[in-house]
Amino acid sequence: MASDEHWMSLAVIEAEKGIGLTSPNPPVGAVIVKNDSILGKGWHQMAGKPHAEREAIATATEKHGKQAIQGATIYVTLEPCSTTGRTPACTDGIIEAGITRVCYGSKDPNPAHAGKADEILKEKGIGVSRISDTQACDLLIRPFSKVQKTGLPWVILKSGMSLDGNITRPKGEGKWLTSQESRSYVQRLRHQSDAILTGGQTLRADDPALTIRDTSLPEKSQPWRMLVTQQCGSNLPTNAQVFTDAYADRTLIQENGDLIASLNRLVNKGCNTVLVEAGGTLMASFLRAGLADEVAFFYAPLITGTPIPAIGFLTHDIELTNQTYQRIGNDILLSALVAKDKKESHT
Amino acid sequence: MASDEHWMSLAVIEAEKGIGLTSPNPPVGAVIVKNDSILGKGWHQMAGKPHAEREAIATATEKHGKQAIQGATIYVTLEPCSTTGRTPACTDGIIEAGITRVCYGSKDPNPAHAGKADEILKEKGIGVSRISDTQACDLLIRPFSKVQKTGLPWVILKSGMSLDGNITRPKGEGKWLTSQESRSYVQRLRHQSDAILTGGQTLRADDPALTIRDTSLPEKSQPWRMLVTQQCGSNLPTNAQVFTDAYADRTLIQENGDLIASLNRLVNKGCNTVLVEAGGTLMASFLRAGLADEVAFFYAPLITGTPIPAIGFLTHDIELTNQTYQRIGNDILLSALVAKDKKESHT
Repeated sequence: MASDEHWMSLAVIEAEKGIGLTSPNPPVGAVIVKNDSILGKGWHQMAGKPHAEREAIATATEKHGKQAIQGATIYVTLEPCSTTGRTPACTDGIIEAGITRVCYGSKDPNPAHAGKADEILKEKGIGVSRISDTQACDLLIRPFSKVQKTGLPWVILKSGMSLDGNITRPKGEGKWLTSQESRSYVQRLRHQSDAILTGGQTLRADDPALTIRDTSLPEKSQPWRMLVTQQCGSNLPTNAQVFTDAYADRTLIQENGDLIASLNRLVNKGCNTVLVEAGGTLMASFLRAGLADEVAFFYAPLITGTPIPAIGFLTHDIELTNQTYQRIGNDILLSALVAKDKKESHT
Repeated sequence: MASDEHWMSLAVIEAEKGIGLTSPNPPVGAVIVKNDSILGKGWHQMAGKPHAEREAIATATEKHGKQAIQGATIYVTLEPCSTTGRTPACTDGIIEAGITRVCYGSKDPNPAHAGKADEILKEKGIGVSRISDTQACDLLIRPFSKVQKTGLPWVILKSGMSLDGNITRPKGEGKWLTSQESRSYVQRLRHQSDAILTGGQTLRADDPALTIRDTSLPEKSQPWRMLVTQQCGSNLPTNAQVFTDAYADRTLIQENGDLIASLNRLVNKGCNTVLVEAGGTLMASFLRAGLADEVAFFYAPLITGTPIPAIGFLTHDIELTNQTYQRIGNDILLSALVAKDKKESHT
């Protein structure tokens, strides 16, 4: 008999298919198991479409018939929803399908909903348990959780820099510090994000498109583009790509450098994850304000010695945790979480 | 029958035992093989002591007797020496021992000596060949080769910095950016070096000892300590550790910031490898002058945002090649070679 952990790891793989596609919902995966074999799998594909549980039930029913699911166990990465939103409550679907055991990973981060499913299901005689190690499940809903708990999105600071922390090459040496492979990887980061945020300075200097152009990635809407300017928006160049391309209706402007307002507006648009691709001044503003959750720094094998820092002036240092690094082309990508508690103790 | 490559890889392992110990000589290893088994191994332990070939012959003789070596093959990482220096020529030792085949790795980097051994040995009817892939062997003699070819030592720039390329922590947060593990690793770098070079500014700010303190490392003399000051030496603090500790006779001062003079003096003291542990200004001077061969940058999981760059201003960017990286404690160590050709094309 395979363990609960085994089946849950398959549900996590299902859920991962939805990363970047499901906001404002989180990615969720589900697997239905009976007699140590899988009857059906499913993942939440898009807000408004069926939840993972209903996808898995539909697949299992189609493949094996309604009868087969009776007495089965469903593994789902997130506590099933118990209220009707854009789609009907998953607890009802589970009860109707005759599933007799539910094993889930993360608790619903919304305290008003957390634990509700347990009550409803147990009342119907359905066994409910949680996996002991919920780390992989919790990771899937990290941006969703942040929005639920704080009203702010998960913010990733992305930068490409030299080994000495600078961001520009001398004139005549081309635009990019980092390799083609790193720029491809940035396409994946953008795909996993719901919005790209940059500053007026970057807009003027680089005129970036801030779009997903890698057609091998699953289809989705272009991310929102949020331009944060210190001044009023009319100072921005009206002929910039973000204002003139086919996705110009996905471009927003935030005046007066109000970061929190810009993030709140993106949450209202349904964004859970925001990727900041900006210069050192704006990067430092996010760090100083405690609004950054994660960094993705690409280091090119280059020492520039030009005093244009990728991260501008900070009044106190920022510690990072959970750092991982990988080689991407000729570059190194360092990913890490901003240690909020540590930071605050330094202020 | 094991391949020449196999036996040579064992000779390389022997040679590596001498890294940091043999200057002005390079580390060299040798293995004597007959009928697919090892008769003896040896490595050069210190200038003035026997070369690797003679160490291996002595070990083989002691274990198996003089007779056993007759007709054996010797694998040696570097072309055997053919002239009598502080010790007698290795070619003579090989001939006397009755060895009938020599397989070596690197050619002697000194053009006056290169290929000499081949002639002498072949004249005596001894088979001579070189391994096809000499990369591992060449790596062992890299600093020695540089001295032979240029009169300058192999220079490694070591720095510990934040992820944004800065070197100091705000006041009250302790002296070190990097972890205990990184500082232990620096002890190994010092042990592999013949001299540590720093600047007057670092001396005044940090009063570093610049010594090997890790007693688990093989015993050797403390490295030379070279202080490069922009002014005259009398401006340096006379109560600094490097002037007052037990190794004060290993401390040298170079005035007027003359980097080439400082390196030449270290070569004259028998140094092949010099580790630069200094601030951004001196680091940049080495890079600008094309005097740096390698970097060892330790990145702490920290963003400081303080504009004290680990590498000072450069007039053109420096490309790096052969970068490798590893996690050390909570830090990342990036090691890479300075791409000289690339650099020059940018000037």
